[in-house]
Parts: sequence; structure tokens; C-alpha cells
Amino acid sequence: MSDQAFVTLATNDSYAKGAMVLGQSLRNHNTTKKLVVLVGPHVAEPCRDALQSVFDEVRVVDVMDSGDTAHLALMKRPDLGVTFTKLHCWTLTHYSKCVFMDADTLVLSNIDELFEREELSAAPDPGWPDCFNSGVFVFRPSNETHEELLTFCGEHGSFDGGDQGVLNSFFNTWATADISKHLPFIYNLSSIAIYSYLPAFKQYGHDAKVVHFLGKVKPWNYSYDAQRGEVSGHSQSPDQSQLHPDYLLMWWQLYAKSVLPLLQKAYGDTPF
Amino acid sequence: MSDQAFVTLATNDSYAKGAMVLGQSLRNHNTTKKLVVLVGPHVAEPCRDALQSVFDEVRVVDVMDSGDTAHLALMKRPDLGVTFTKLHCWTLTHYSKCVFMDADTLVLSNIDELFEREELSAAPDPGWPDCFNSGVFVFRPSNETHEELLTFCGEHGSFDGGDQGVLNSFFNTWATADISKHLPFIYNLSSIAIYSYLPAFKQYGHDAKVVHFLGKVKPWNYSYDAQRGEVSGHSQSPDQSQLHPDYLLMWWQLYAKSVLPLLQKAYGDTPF
Ligand SMILES: O=c1ccn([C@@H]2O[C@H](COP(=O)(O)OP(=O)(O)O)[C@@H](O)[C@H]2O)c(=O)[nH]1
Ligand SMILES: O=c1ccn([C@@H]2O[C@H](COP(=O)(O)OP(=O)(O)O)[C@@H](O)[C@H]2O)c(=O)[nH]1
Ligand SMILES: [Mn+2]
Ligand SMILES: [Mn+2]
Repeated sequence: MSDQAFVTLATNDSYAKGAMVLGQSLRNHNTTKKLVVLVGPHVAEPCRDALQSVFDEVRVVDVMDSGDTAHLALMKRPDLGVTFTKLHCWTLTHYSKCVFMDADTLVLSNIDELFEREELSAAPDPGWPDCFNSGVFVFRPSNETHEELLTFCGEHGSFDGGDQGVLNSFFNTWATADISKHLPFIYNLSSIAIYSYLPAFKQYGHDAKVVHFLGKVKPWNYSYDAQRGEVSGHSQSPDQSQLHPDYLLMWWQLYAKSVLPLLQKAYGDTPF
Repeated sequence: MSDQAFVTLATNDSYAKGAMVLGQSLRNHNTTKKLVVLVGPHVAEPCRDALQSVFDEVRVVDVMDSGDTAHLALMKRPDLGVTFTKLHCWTLTHYSKCVFMDADTLVLSNIDELFEREELSAAPDPGWPDCFNSGVFVFRPSNETHEELLTFCGEHGSFDGGDQGVLNSFFNTWATADISKHLPFIYNLSSIAIYSYLPAFKQYGHDAKVVHFLGKVKPWNYSYDAQRGEVSGHSQSPDQSQLHPDYLLMWWQLYAKSVLPLLQKAYGDTPF
């Protein structure tokens, strides 16, 4: 379907790597949808080139010069820069329906069935389960909604300082109005939930469709020994991590096999 | 309404203290419903007396001699003793509708409106939010359902070793079928969720109606200095606890004011 797309976002080169892995995982599972990545102005040129070979559309979003409402809203809340960039996905009106996915997600099977859902469908957040997690959500592009979101954002800010707070305040009947807008948790399985209720993960986790590496430490903060096929400690805190080793390994295998070659081609001799 | 009741459970004297605090908190908020506590055979006599002065009905449940199906199921899964005792609440058929509440919950306002909900209504579990937490749920007593639950339990066991696993497997459409069976999270606010997504707690927590002291460490594991009105460290791990200090203090204030006198009266000179 050419009027439906998966959309992700990367405002810097690290998240761009995540976006490439996500995009490639969607391709590997034979999605029939378009793939779109929104990039911030700070994403390097060769990095954009690499994104171009995975995504159908690489769209540069500069909130600073993206219309009056956006500009005004950003002036009021300069801390919400990334959030405003994410909200930009509502302007993709050449698509009739989209699924937004964080750049730190990884797809484990075909999930095109998500397009049967309506705006705003999302999975519960394990931290406060009457909030949805904004790492995976179904939406309908609309300039009107975009304006309303920007205005809302400028006026009320975000209770958590990010897009999840804004979106939950804006789509504030998610918890109570319509069960079909509750995506099953296996469409946004955050590593945190694995350890907080392990028996449930053992019972239901084998059906996981999307893994979300939510939290401070991301897969790209680790290192990978391609020879041995082993992921090793990351920079932030070498002791305990909450990322599930199997999913982490899958991320790195995909990165090493399909993303690294693209980056090497795009960057040539320049280190990245 | 005399055919509707709040029901809790205590298989030992510690949980019985929790049950008394819960019962008293329901009374303080002027519930019009009956209060029932199921007690295991090991709850001491004076402790039952104290329960009697808070609850309308103190019902002793001995799974060992509570009917063929229960007995058989228990033989197959001796590890699920407390779970079988909890399931016994379905036999309270002199009530048309009930709300079960764990003995480690505390009510912060009148919640009689829960009786407008149907079986099985419950709030999401913050660990795996497509499961409901079985600390607070609306149910309809029925001997038939009770038998089905026991049989199910004997045959499939529990994926988490407790009643939450069994109930989620039995009522397995909760996540997908009917939004009205999703109680708002503020009816079963677990201390864990406070810290896992603090901005959401700050945004929504002031409306909390039921606090659930979920996890290993319970309020009664702490100690309380009535003179100073201060809760101090508990036995298990004196450093970091996950229980919210305000709610913990409320629990102890209620205990000191309304429950302790009952226990002192019931036990006389015997230590408890
Ligand atoms: O500096 C940033 C931070 C976030 N993001 C995008 O915003 C999403 C949400 O942020 P993140 O995944 O870090 O938040 P979490 O899921 O850990 O709460 C990311 O996946 C990216 O798509 C980005 O592009 N640059
Ligand atoms: O030894 C026990 C354990 C549990 N319970 C009852 O079963 C409920 C569920 O157990 P708990 O609250 O300890 O589990 P959690 O909510 O921490 O998962 C308790 O609140 C009590 O009502 C009990 O009576 N005796
Ligand atoms: Mn994320
Ligand atoms: Mn409990």
C-alpha cells in the first residue's frame, strides 16, 4: 500500500543507526508499506545517504523554519525540540495512515496488520499502564491535528518532558474509551518489563513482535565482536544492564550484517 | 447494598493486620457495602476476634476440607495453597457482586462505584500491562465459576505461581475484549509504579483511590514510632525500599489509631 507508511525519527547520527536497523528489520519481514525517516538538521550527510538506501523517504525536519505555529511553540518550550520534531510526523499527509516507531525499536515479524487500527492506537506503558507508550503508535497524518498538537504543546508543555507526556495528555481517552486502540503489549515490548514480571515474559514473550530498547542505554552504546558474535559491555554502566541479551544480539547481528556495510560505503575512509 | 461486599483474605496473622487496616480504611470512607474477610485455619483466635470487629463476616476457609474439586486440585498443586484460598471468594454466593482486595491494599477514598463494573474488572499490572493485577478485582460469586477455576488451576497450574497467573489465564480476554473491564490504574496504584515513571505519578497520582503495597516488603515489616509519628526501616533490607513514605505513614497511622486497640483488646496480656 503506497499510501501507508512506517515512520521513524533520528535527530542525530546515533539514533540514525537505530533507525537503519529498524528499517532493515521491517524490510526483512517483507513489509508492503513505505518506510519514512524524519531526520534532524544535525544528521550528517553520509548518514543520510545510508538512510536513503533503507528508507523510501528521508525527510529533513528543521523545526526552526517549519511554519509559524511550530516556531512559536518552540520559542515557548525550547526544551521540547525533539518532541516537536517527532510531532512533525503528522504532516506526512501524502499518506493516509502511518505507524510511528521509535528508532530504538526492532521488529521481529511482519506487523503490517497494525494498519488495520485507527488513530491513536498504542500499547500500554509498563511504568504507568494507563498511559500508552509513545514508542509505537498508529496515527493519521493531518495538518489540522499537527497544528492542534503544536498549540497544545506550547501551552501545556509535557508532563514528562517528552513526546509521551504530550501525546497522552492530548489523546487523553486512550485508557478508557476504546479497547481496539490498545495494541497488545507484544507490539511494544520494553526490555524493562521482561525483568519486572519475568513469569509473564516467559508465558507471553515468545509472541513478541516489536522489541523496544527503552531507557538510557541503547543497543548502540554497547560494542560487538563480529568475529565471536558477542555483544560486550556498554560505556555508561558496565555492570548491570536491563537490555535482554538475546534481543541485543539480534540488534547487533542485523547492524553488522546489513547496516555497517551501508555506512562504510557512505563514509568511505572517514571514521564514523 | 447488603448483597454486595468487599472481600479480602488473610492466611496468617501478619496479613490479618493488613486486612484490618484495609477494612478500617473502607469504613472510614463510609462504604455502604458489606465487608468480608476469608481467613486461613492458621489465623489465631484473638486475631479473628479483632477482625470480627471490623468486618461483617469472618469466614474460615480450610481448602483441605472444602469440597472434592478443591481437594483434588490442591493435591495436584500443593504449592498453590494460598491461591486456592483466594479463589474461594467465588463461593460467597449470598452476595450478587463483590470486589476482592488484597490485604496489602489501602483505600484513600470511597470506591463503592466499583460495583457498577462487571466480572472480571481489574486494573493493569505495571509489570506486564496486558495482564491485570489481581490485587483489586470485581467478580460475581458463582459456584460454577469456582469449580471451573479450581479445575483450571489443577490442570494448568499458574504461570507465576500465584493467583494472578491463574486468573489472567482463565479470564484471558481482559486485555483485548472490553475497555469497561479495565479499572483505572488509580484503583490499584502499586508503589512500584510510582518510581518507574515518576512524572506520571506526579501528573495523575493525586487522584489515587487505592494504594497497593505490592512486593516482598509490606507495611507491617516496618516499625512505627507512635510518639514521633515516624515510620522506620524494616527488617528485610534497611537501605532502599520501594514503598512510598506518605502512603506508608498513612497505613501506620491508621494501624496505630484504629487497629492496634482492637488487637490489644483481643490479645489482652498475650504478646502478638
Ligand atoms: O536525541 C534524540 C532522542 C530521541 N530521538 C527520537 O525519539 C525517540 C524517543 O526517544 P528514546 O527512544 O530515547 O526514548 P525512550 O524510548 O528511551 O523513552 C527515539 O527512539 C528517536 O526516534 C532522537 O531522534 N534523538
Ligand atoms: O501468605 C500469604 C500470602 C498472601 N495472602 C493473601 O494474598 C494476597 C496476595 O499476596 P501479596 O499481596 O503478598 O502479593 P503481591 O500483591 O505482593 O504480589 C495478600 O494480599 C493476602 O490477601 C495471604 O493471606 N497470605
Ligand atoms: Mn524509545
Ligand atoms: Mn498484594
